[in-house]
Amino acid sequence: MANEISRHILSFVLVLLLLSETVSFDWKKPCKSFVLYQHNIAYDSDNTDNATSATILNPLGLGNFLFGKFVIFDNPVTMDQNYLSKPVARAQGFIFYNKKSNFNIWVACTLVFNSTQHKGTFTIMDANPIREPTRDLSIVGGTGDFFMTRGIATFKSDLIQGSKYFRLKMDINLYECY
Amino acid sequence: MANEISRHILSFVLVLLLLSETVSFDWKKPCKSFVLYQHNIAYDSDNTDNATSATILNPLGLGNFLFGKFVIFDNPVTMDQNYLSKPVARAQGFIFYNKKSNFNIWVACTLVFNSTQHKGTFTIMDANPIREPTRDLSIVGGTGDFFMTRGIATFKSDLIQGSKYFRLKMDINLYECY
Amino acid sequence: MANEISRHILSFVLVLLLLSETVSFDWKKPCKSFVLYQHNIAYDSDNTDNATSATILNPLGLGNFLFGKFVIFDNPVTMDQNYLSKPVARAQGFIFYNKKSNFNIWVACTLVFNSTQHKGTFTIMDANPIREPTRDLSIVGGTGDFFMTRGIATFKSDLIQGSKYFRLKMDINLYECY
Repeated sequence: MANEISRHILSFVLVLLLLSETVSFDWKKPCKSFVLYQHNIAYDSDNTDNATSATILNPLGLGNFLFGKFVIFDNPVTMDQNYLSKPVARAQGFIFYNKKSNFNIWVACTLVFNSTQHKGTFTIMDANPIREPTRDLSIVGGTGDFFMTRGIATFKSDLIQGSKYFRLKMDINLYECY
Repeated sequence: MANEISRHILSFVLVLLLLSETVSFDWKKPCKSFVLYQHNIAYDSDNTDNATSATILNPLGLGNFLFGKFVIFDNPVTMDQNYLSKPVARAQGFIFYNKKSNFNIWVACTLVFNSTQHKGTFTIMDANPIREPTRDLSIVGGTGDFFMTRGIATFKSDLIQGSKYFRLKMDINLYECY
Repeated sequence: MANEISRHILSFVLVLLLLSETVSFDWKKPCKSFVLYQHNIAYDSDNTDNATSATILNPLGLGNFLFGKFVIFDNPVTMDQNYLSKPVARAQGFIFYNKKSNFNIWVACTLVFNSTQHKGTFTIMDANPIREPTRDLSIVGGTGDFFMTRGIATFKSDLIQGSKYFRLKMDINLYECY
């Protein structure tokens, strides 16, 4: 008899638990992790076919580290380091230089996925101290396959070829997945 | 006696459940949904009285789709399609064109409510591929009546009159409400 | 015997509760609160040593309230009002004026902590109606010590000295801490 009552309580509590929340996260472990590479080819007024980014405002003379330079981009994003690999996403957004004593940028950028495998976006926004070997940046929202996601993107400058080309390694760790 | 103990356990568990979280969401269903219309009248240097947005930087010549054009706005937002209806909010933010092969924009914009009915803000930020019939954009935070909200805004170009006026239909779905 | 069973149920339920979520928030009370002061010295082409911000685009003539003025900054942030106190963070980001009928700005800015005490960032983004005595702005994400944080920053113009210097009081209230 006591046993039976206990079982009823247990069932009831289980139902309550299920009702009380529909998603639960372990905030220490990402629910999705992957690595992407972003490729940037700067527009030099003579490479329209290849360019993926362009400076819309030039440095204004505060210090010697490009303070005020403002760049808009639509960069291909691949799964490996090869610029010629089929892009899985585009990185769309802007950066500007914001320090007079060192090279330092601030970035807001959306990864736009539009393939049979993945549809949707997520957006990164944070300071990006490019002289550091790696930088953690906030992922603040998403849509589609990345509905309402949040997390951290760890950026690493993977290859820099003067002011013409750079490749950015992006370690994506999402901690909210729905 | 066993019955009594079971009841005590049950009460204890219920209290635990109540303490363990103060808000719970069903992530599949929005906690708030509404439709808004945003109206944009472009400044042409001769319409200061009516203008609600202005281009601060012009396209720089990368491709033929306005790459680099940058616009700041303070647009009225209404509950219906009529531009002359009493605004319930202002949409304040910026967009820029960022593709050399098609018309495509990126947007960050805050809806500012300041009436007797609603006070507070929420902010939208995402890619906005304006050639698509509808686009989902992330809502990444809010204040006041929209304290800490998150969700999705679905944009639809409702009416476009050349480069002078456009009306944007915004389906707002909030999935976190406090 | 019934007592024993009940105890087993209780243990089981407690384990379930612990598993079911690893973090729980009381959304009414901040999990972290502190006050910071941000100091802004505008670049005037002759004060490179002291300047912490610079206008990259000037007002374009829509109304008389600086519509279109765009400023980038890397401002020191201190724990007290004294500009000469040791900075605990830098505020990196941008603002622009966006209203033709009043002084009103929109801001996106990251607080970058890089000391022995605090490492990490969080990012504020919202409308900032600077003529109001206080303004609530959204904190939409963070990294490091502020991993995945969200909350509200309440801004107050603490001191304004013409167009040369201003000090901003920032009441930070975080409602998600991990």
